[in-house]
Amino acid sequence: MISKVSHIGIAVKNLEEAIDIWTKLGLTVEGIETVESQKVRVAFLPIGKEVRIELLEPTSEDSPIAKYIEKKGVGIHHLALASDDVINEMQKAENNGLQLIDKTPRPGAHNASIAFLHPKAMAGVLLELCQEKHDH
Amino acid sequence: MISKVSHIGIAVKNLEEAIDIWTKLGLTVEGIETVESQKVRVAFLPIGKEVRIELLEPTSEDSPIAKYIEKKGVGIHHLALASDDVINEMQKAENNGLQLIDKTPRPGAHNASIAFLHPKAMAGVLLELCQEKHDH
Repeated sequence: MISKVSHIGIAVKNLEEAIDIWTKLGLTVEGIETVESQKVRVAFLPIGKEVRIELLEPTSEDSPIAKYIEKKGVGIHHLALASDDVINEMQKAENNGLQLIDKTPRPGAHNASIAFLHPKAMAGVLLELCQEKHDH
Repeated sequence: MISKVSHIGIAVKNLEEAIDIWTKLGLTVEGIETVESQKVRVAFLPIGKEVRIELLEPTSEDSPIAKYIEKKGVGIHHLALASDDVINEMQKAENNGLQLIDKTPRPGAHNASIAFLHPKAMAGVLLELCQEKHDH
């Protein structure tokens, strides 16, 4: 079952400049992490009890985020919904005719297991299904 | 103080088609409302305890959402952060050099008081500050 919004992923060109902007709203950075498989550096800024802002800076020109910025510009990149069983959510989505990008879950930031639905399936929204690891 | 993510606003062409897609994920529609001042019909789908998805369908060709869809396509339109004092948040933002679109709060869906920051201020993100009414 989808339990909450996990995070909102925002594509940025420069992580430090983006952090400077978002912390002006009174948010604080919880951590910074590099996700090698996605070629991104990610800063997490919690808001409330459920959600984090994830600022995503490409670490390479062939990063998916670099390609997104080139095509669409900086801004909100994806929405991630949390579930305690990402494989089950993927199966439900597929059974309901929603097209998946990932056929099996893959590792995301914070050791989560993640899978993306196709933006065409969700009328223009790149949606991530995300099983968060509660190891801390 | 910013307390949580209030909602994620998503621009759609057809509200019923969008509801059909999002309810396939197991979400349910809490209500549908027309906001005359913004020329939109809005469906609210709660996720977790804090956040709602707001699907925004233009009711007129000169609706800001119609213009957004024409320029950028359907998809995530804005991110709204909740505060118990939107005027204070606006002043803090302005004092920190973040450019506002609204100089005074205006009425939004669900009887909220809202104000938008300029996307240029937030590196491509259209950010809404939102004081929710707790009258139910």
